[in-house]
Amino acid sequence: MPVEIERKFLVASDSWRGHALGQRYCQGYLSKGDVTVRVRRAGPRAFLTIKGSGEGIVRPEFEYEIPVEEAEEMLKLCRRPLIEKTRFEVMHDGLRWEIDEFAGENAGLVLAEVELEHPSQPVALPDWIGDEVTADQRYRNSQLVDAPMGEDREQVTSFTIGIQQQT
Amino acid sequence: MPVEIERKFLVASDSWRGHALGQRYCQGYLSKGDVTVRVRRAGPRAFLTIKGSGEGIVRPEFEYEIPVEEAEEMLKLCRRPLIEKTRFEVMHDGLRWEIDEFAGENAGLVLAEVELEHPSQPVALPDWIGDEVTADQRYRNSQLVDAPMGEDREQVTSFTIGIQQQT
Repeated sequence: MPVEIERKFLVASDSWRGHALGQRYCQGYLSKGDVTVRVRRAGPRAFLTIKGSGEGIVRPEFEYEIPVEEAEEMLKLCRRPLIEKTRFEVMHDGLRWEIDEFAGENAGLVLAEVELEHPSQPVALPDWIGDEVTADQRYRNSQLVDAPMGEDREQVTSFTIGIQQQT
Repeated sequence: MPVEIERKFLVASDSWRGHALGQRYCQGYLSKGDVTVRVRRAGPRAFLTIKGSGEGIVRPEFEYEIPVEEAEEMLKLCRRPLIEKTRFEVMHDGLRWEIDEFAGENAGLVLAEVELEHPSQPVALPDWIGDEVTADQRYRNSQLVDAPMGEDREQVTSFTIGIQQQT
């Protein structure tokens, strides 16, 4: 089964920014639950992607390129809000890092991902990398639809703590 | 937006059966809710299909042919039970009817569908056609996963009536 092996981190500083132009992504989710069905418009191309829940950092993944016009129509069927972000690519120590700067309801959030060949593959972390959030479901893009982490992020965190104290 | 315009009927008799060989279908659903994401193995081919909820008998539909091996892997991610059926095609008065004879947990159920160009298109019903169930959500294949209508169909119906009488 084709799989995605990926680690995800918060971004601690802006020192990754170079002259690279980012590409605008707009994506949405057709399903809710362990299996995600994602419609992504990535610049001039579009993709339909199925991801299973998987174990640890390994998730089954199936991706198909689809006509942009059909992706636009399918985005209308997706849950709201759609995820809007700009993706930048940075090479570091032979690995390609994807840095997502979110917009819309997740504005302010910046996440970095690195795709690996093996779950235990050693990764040299760039100095602009912050905490690892690979296992933190809240940072899955599909979760950022239901619980955005943008400008209201502090408030959301406080609210969550408030609830926890009450129970 | 590409749409599917379809009417669905119960099948009242076996007189549709000719010498046509049916093709075995196995399909499952990756999502639950208004938008369905279907993985279908149809004989030697396979498809990934997104259907919106739509209005009346018109539903947005997007279909992509995918490698059979990937469909088999994706079927493992689908809700249980999978829908198993044999599809027969019969021409009647210039329209192509698809007759699905279900197996597995829906064994005994036979449904006929006809795809139309327009919602109000006149349809000459073959004499083996029974009640129309186009608007009856229970006969959607995605619903037949959660509430199969096979040999236990009578019991399911009685149980539903029992519940209704109690409320």
